[in-house]
Amino acid sequence: MLFIIGLGLGDERDITLRGLEAVKSCEKVYMESYTSLLSFGLDSHGLSNLEKLYGKTITLADREMVEEKAHHILEEARHSHVAFLVVGDPFGATTHTDLVVRAKKMGIHVQSVHNASVMNAIGICGLQLYRYGETVSIPFFTGSWRPDSFYEKIHSNRTMGLHTLCLLDIRVKEPTLESLARGRKTYEPPRYMTINTAIEQLLEVVQERQQPAYTEDTQCVGFARLGSDDQMIIAGTMKQLQMVDFGAPLHCLVITGNTHPLEEEMLEFYRCRT
Amino acid sequence: MLFIIGLGLGDERDITLRGLEAVKSCEKVYMESYTSLLSFGLDSHGLSNLEKLYGKTITLADREMVEEKAHHILEEARHSHVAFLVVGDPFGATTHTDLVVRAKKMGIHVQSVHNASVMNAIGICGLQLYRYGETVSIPFFTGSWRPDSFYEKIHSNRTMGLHTLCLLDIRVKEPTLESLARGRKTYEPPRYMTINTAIEQLLEVVQERQQPAYTEDTQCVGFARLGSDDQMIIAGTMKQLQMVDFGAPLHCLVITGNTHPLEEEMLEFYRCRT
Repeated sequence: MLFIIGLGLGDERDITLRGLEAVKSCEKVYMESYTSLLSFGLDSHGLSNLEKLYGKTITLADREMVEEKAHHILEEARHSHVAFLVVGDPFGATTHTDLVVRAKKMGIHVQSVHNASVMNAIGICGLQLYRYGETVSIPFFTGSWRPDSFYEKIHSNRTMGLHTLCLLDIRVKEPTLESLARGRKTYEPPRYMTINTAIEQLLEVVQERQQPAYTEDTQCVGFARLGSDDQMIIAGTMKQLQMVDFGAPLHCLVITGNTHPLEEEMLEFYRCRT
Repeated sequence: MLFIIGLGLGDERDITLRGLEAVKSCEKVYMESYTSLLSFGLDSHGLSNLEKLYGKTITLADREMVEEKAHHILEEARHSHVAFLVVGDPFGATTHTDLVVRAKKMGIHVQSVHNASVMNAIGICGLQLYRYGETVSIPFFTGSWRPDSFYEKIHSNRTMGLHTLCLLDIRVKEPTLESLARGRKTYEPPRYMTINTAIEQLLEVVQERQQPAYTEDTQCVGFARLGSDDQMIIAGTMKQLQMVDFGAPLHCLVITGNTHPLEEEMLEFYRCRT
């Protein structure tokens, strides 16, 4: 039996009772460490909080490990209870879907335990979830690699008056160029895109457009460490948010569409005061 | 202090440890009973499971009560810890946003505890959450009242290749026509739209359209009691799903847009076998 268990967004206390019960029934516990990290995943101290709570040793699984050793993990799940812990909800990221597909093909029973994800927790700012269009991802621009397919999606969302959730790039365990050349892997330090960088890129992309989908005066909401005790949520124009220091990762950004009075009233409480 | 606590989608075990801790710290516990109900909310037995778990008496709060007595609830929250329990995530429904706005205006500290909602738990079927367009609501058609504004939204989602989540109507505590005439309130029995009715209405609406956004052969996914132990998830054409008995509420429906190979692979496991 393979349990895919969402841990939610904050710390070890965000697991559900159903999830905790499942983890405790497992002989082996893996935790994904490649799509996002949260307060308890960022250091060994946090991880040990989880281990203490579960009474289990946790094996951190990066993307490489899950892709290379999925078969091994699934073989274990064939004969015993195995937990695969995922930050947020289990089906936020494609890689987990892939693991589930492989498990089901092997005839392994899979059970999912849901939890909050960024996709629904952004509701806290007051912008109604059913008024969002397609979600976009904003990748780090490098010298010549400046992919801007997110622009057209934001454009069509805003044309329809819809809000847009922008997920910001996470680079974890990226091999260095040098190491790729030498064939021996060493890794870049992890990088998490800030709201400031995201806005910089958004404004760069819009510069050459005729009828810009947004400007530096477009209302946005910036979220940092959503769901944690020290979460930060600030509403303001792109220009205003670009000046804000949102602190430690993870960050995400919402670009508003048309807002209703109740949405406006709620945003007021998060309004940037500069 | 007002805690708005998401209970998740299944039963009493879907609360998070953070949520449980918060409820236990509260002197008064309310539970909303108007936006959706789940296994533990449907009967008094279920409610008592919650009460046993929390060691607290729970006051059920329907829409009328929340709207009329919000001030009373908030006055309590000014001087003590009050919990307001919500099925799913706290910000799935507008009414909760309204309560939070009122609390904040009164200077009451509000703390939200997130959980899974339908909006993210549908990820379990394998259709990627970031490939959904705007969410639509399908209301019960009556004699002459057949509002079909959902159609244009589905149309524009499908034009962009995006999936559409259809939330199906819930009628709880609707006053009878007779009682409105007499000025003394009696209520209709609760009604929950089934997937079958939703598809019937969807196909009725599309009949007169020139370039139909979908047909009875369009691939959909039906969800019943999502997140519960007896959840049912079936993928098939509208025509196929119309023949399926999904059982007890709540139901919701996803109309697919363009699908990726991994999405297809995952849907295979839920495919209708008739």
